[in-house]
Amino acid sequence: MSSAVEVYKKKTKRSAKVFERSKKFHVNGVSHNIRFFEPYPFVTKSGKGKYLIDIDGNKYVDYWMGHWSLILGHAAPQVSGLVKKQLPACWMHGTVNEMTVSFSEVIQNAVPVAEKIRYVSTGTEATMYAVRIARAVTGKKTIAKIDGGWHGYTSDLLKSVNWPFEEPESLGLTDESHIVSIPYNDLEKSIQILQSVKDDLAGVIIEPLLGGGGCIPATKEYLLGIQEFVHKNNALFLLDEIVTGFRFAFGCLYPSMNLDPDIVTLGKIVGGGFPIGIICGKEEIMKIADTNTHKKLERSYVGGGTFSANPITMTSGKAMLDFLKKNSNQVYKKIGKLGNQARKDLAKVFDNKVAITGMGSLFMTHFLTNGMTEVKNASDASRCNIDILHKYHFEMIAKDGIFFLPGKLGAISYAHSESDIKNLVESSTMFSASLK
Amino acid sequence: MSSAVEVYKKKTKRSAKVFERSKKFHVNGVSHNIRFFEPYPFVTKSGKGKYLIDIDGNKYVDYWMGHWSLILGHAAPQVSGLVKKQLPACWMHGTVNEMTVSFSEVIQNAVPVAEKIRYVSTGTEATMYAVRIARAVTGKKTIAKIDGGWHGYTSDLLKSVNWPFEEPESLGLTDESHIVSIPYNDLEKSIQILQSVKDDLAGVIIEPLLGGGGCIPATKEYLLGIQEFVHKNNALFLLDEIVTGFRFAFGCLYPSMNLDPDIVTLGKIVGGGFPIGIICGKEEIMKIADTNTHKKLERSYVGGGTFSANPITMTSGKAMLDFLKKNSNQVYKKIGKLGNQARKDLAKVFDNKVAITGMGSLFMTHFLTNGMTEVKNASDASRCNIDILHKYHFEMIAKDGIFFLPGKLGAISYAHSESDIKNLVESSTMFSASLK
Repeated sequence: MSSAVEVYKKKTKRSAKVFERSKKFHVNGVSHNIRFFEPYPFVTKSGKGKYLIDIDGNKYVDYWMGHWSLILGHAAPQVSGLVKKQLPACWMHGTVNEMTVSFSEVIQNAVPVAEKIRYVSTGTEATMYAVRIARAVTGKKTIAKIDGGWHGYTSDLLKSVNWPFEEPESLGLTDESHIVSIPYNDLEKSIQILQSVKDDLAGVIIEPLLGGGGCIPATKEYLLGIQEFVHKNNALFLLDEIVTGFRFAFGCLYPSMNLDPDIVTLGKIVGGGFPIGIICGKEEIMKIADTNTHKKLERSYVGGGTFSANPITMTSGKAMLDFLKKNSNQVYKKIGKLGNQARKDLAKVFDNKVAITGMGSLFMTHFLTNGMTEVKNASDASRCNIDILHKYHFEMIAKDGIFFLPGKLGAISYAHSESDIKNLVESSTMFSASLK
Repeated sequence: MSSAVEVYKKKTKRSAKVFERSKKFHVNGVSHNIRFFEPYPFVTKSGKGKYLIDIDGNKYVDYWMGHWSLILGHAAPQVSGLVKKQLPACWMHGTVNEMTVSFSEVIQNAVPVAEKIRYVSTGTEATMYAVRIARAVTGKKTIAKIDGGWHGYTSDLLKSVNWPFEEPESLGLTDESHIVSIPYNDLEKSIQILQSVKDDLAGVIIEPLLGGGGCIPATKEYLLGIQEFVHKNNALFLLDEIVTGFRFAFGCLYPSMNLDPDIVTLGKIVGGGFPIGIICGKEEIMKIADTNTHKKLERSYVGGGTFSANPITMTSGKAMLDFLKKNSNQVYKKIGKLGNQARKDLAKVFDNKVAITGMGSLFMTHFLTNGMTEVKNASDASRCNIDILHKYHFEMIAKDGIFFLPGKLGAISYAHSESDIKNLVESSTMFSASLK
């Protein structure tokens, strides 16, 4: 038993007991596979600002931040105040409400492609509909995604997520033949693959920064090249900005690269921490979902769902965006600067043994293996030493009260400060020394 | 212009303006197709007890009740009090929390099949995973559903929802060939169809009361017959109790029929009005989703998602179930009695021109067309006069302050009273007279 595990077990005794009970009720003990880590995950009592606090009373400076949703930190008062006010008017109407209109106005101003908007409750639903609309509009079936690209659990995109990318992701899928996968940031090979399916190509879906696949920004040249091919071949260019939307600036990442997507999906930050997914698209594309003007055989059936545009998510999302808009300079400058500092200092700490990927407030440490010098796609990321990464993250959880979900990228929130980055660098220095 | 439309337009002037703005931003003006009705839906300001209140100040006694989720009425204090308390500890952790364990304990006690539970954020996600697990466990691909059965928008089940059932539901689907559909409450024909696909049959998914398809209870004989066939042919019996769970009793509908499902999906009521979907299943089935014990090629990849088991939904759901458990006699007796009264009195009002379907607190009026005498499946329901039903519902919205989502079934909540049913019957009497 390593000393970090001993330390962790000693300080998380109540968590251990509650997690034992959790295993009785839940597959894996969790409701999301990635929330499990060895020997057992601590059980959260509360989140406050930069901290997660567990039921044993341990405090962790949190870089997981609710799957990277909480850009203002936990329990941000800018959001909770208005949510509290909304509760007496109910959290669920099932009918049209006015805050949805106000919220959409803010989004449309910030995200030009959002000529028409539809709200759903999760990112998984948003990408499912984006793909359905692309197929409906083009009358074609094949969707291309990126090796290591993650767009949620929808059956329509569950292929080539985890290395080895040619293996199926899951038993029980039936339709992987309509998905092809292309290598990130390798335009030549990607075009070659797209060329081979172009007659049936309905669309390509890409994260402009590969999130779950390793926190890797796409090059502008790559995205422009793919977009050009896609549009030349009467397919749709779908950008998944669920992770990147409102993360680096007030709006999406794509305008900074002069991209012209047909549909953009949003989630995470834009809901202020409440369940949300958004499909934003050009009017001429989205109108195929209009059941008033399109009959059954001409429409793409795009839902929403029972909880879509519910008054709490709409209130929370608008509160979040209103604050970010008003304080955009301050927020993005601060968290971007802390991100740059983290990347620079961590690279130094680990010398040439790691690649630190990311941009702005997102960063990830990859422990390079023999012969590697960089990480520019998910194949590179999966060749890195994931055991050391887990050990690194776990040691910080156990010994230093710093929480990254083991193996995942880190997100800096507005609640973090320079001293947090210093502490992170210090912990990393000790870990680096232990590797020698 | 009918007089009801005039009355409605006169009293919903602010709604008209806001909905015009909504159309600028949203496909159809809404985020769920069914929330639109002619000439335009009123815009909700708040919900309180049995009432929906619009931005023009009109009050409606609500039988839509948030897609039938709000069994205690709008803004139930039994739920909002605890939600308010949770807010300072954050609404989103992205990690394991203790309230999930307590909530699951309540569910497992009430729903025997819930040997293992996984939380997601919508019903659409829950049924998607149920189907994926069935295919994974059986190694087969075909899923059978009911003509008119509604299980959300998942691509895996979007077939034979709206009449004519043989037409595709949507452009942009790719995999309808793995779905077959069977007629509700017609065991002989259903078995005939199942027989023809039995070698590839992974499972059958059924609502024990057809919800969106017409508020029609299945007969015990039908469900037992289907279950027997399914189990004899090494397939899974999946019950979708998203509408029926905790609607008629504290727990599901299936135990009262001595059914033995492999997976049950829940949603709506169990989240207390916050976004939720639940997959409940037998341990031996659900273990295929365990990524700790099953490698990539052996597992069924079942998510959860960013917002799964978030502390607000868990708090709200547990508050709801705790109240229902403690007051189960009172709640279900009261709303069931009001439902019986509504069905009995409405049948009398409309004489033999309608069939009133439903059970307990759910009811729906079907205007029979020539030669029809009953409504026992979705085909029957779709042969009824839907225009008169819309007119009936709209007249009550416009003139009587009674809200059914036009064309949909009604749900009675604990906040309704006998006088509400009396008013409904009185309005219906006037409408019935106008038909003569």
